[in-house]
Amino acid sequence: MPTATPITATADELGAVRYDANGLVAAIVQEQGTGEVLMLGWMNTEALSRTLETGRTWFWSRSRQDYWCKGETSGDRQWVRDARYDCDMDALLFVVEQEGRGACHTGERSCFFRSFGSGVEPGPV
Amino acid sequence: MPTATPITATADELGAVRYDANGLVAAIVQEQGTGEVLMLGWMNTEALSRTLETGRTWFWSRSRQDYWCKGETSGDRQWVRDARYDCDMDALLFVVEQEGRGACHTGERSCFFRSFGSGVEPGPV
Repeated sequence: MPTATPITATADELGAVRYDANGLVAAIVQEQGTGEVLMLGWMNTEALSRTLETGRTWFWSRSRQDYWCKGETSGDRQWVRDARYDCDMDALLFVVEQEGRGACHTGERSCFFRSFGSGVEPGPV
Repeated sequence: MPTATPITATADELGAVRYDANGLVAAIVQEQGTGEVLMLGWMNTEALSRTLETGRTWFWSRSRQDYWCKGETSGDRQWVRDARYDCDMDALLFVVEQEGRGACHTGERSCFFRSFGSGVEPGPV
């Protein structure tokens, strides 16, 4: 099993993150090594704190209005290796070691497995 | 100069994109070849259409409430090579050929050039 590596952020760093009107910030998840973009989730202050403290990705589900820890049920866990923020502090990027099948609930490794113009109909999955 | 390669999306694809309450969808930009995540921007239906039709990235600026085409002023243009959407159609990923210095207005290649816990103070840039 991969090892968790908690990250100690400074109060200045945490205080500088800019959340939207709903208290959320977009969090991109990228796979270490391959560089593949796996998914995009949403974090509030608590989800970000949990992510940094546990070394696992925690998100806020807008549909379920609840926290979720990626892979807690499926086993497809994400182990955070680097936590970055962008130049204007309103987007986050987590570089992770992806455990199991991948990030997508469909069984695909990345949630971004379809392209515009590919001819594949974008039905619900 | 890189060549634009417009993408013809189907009406089903375009119609399936889910925008938030403000009519926006998060758009990740990743560099072709290196796999580096360069930035995250926001698109509405018009910005997405312009992006696919011109083969250059167009965004909606939430602060300026206006469209902007990446690199139009700076020359740091992004040429779209693949336009993907995620499993629940509420996040986009553009794989681009990045021209010029890079994506960030600070001069860094990627907007995500700082990490939590790095000890670098996140002042305004």
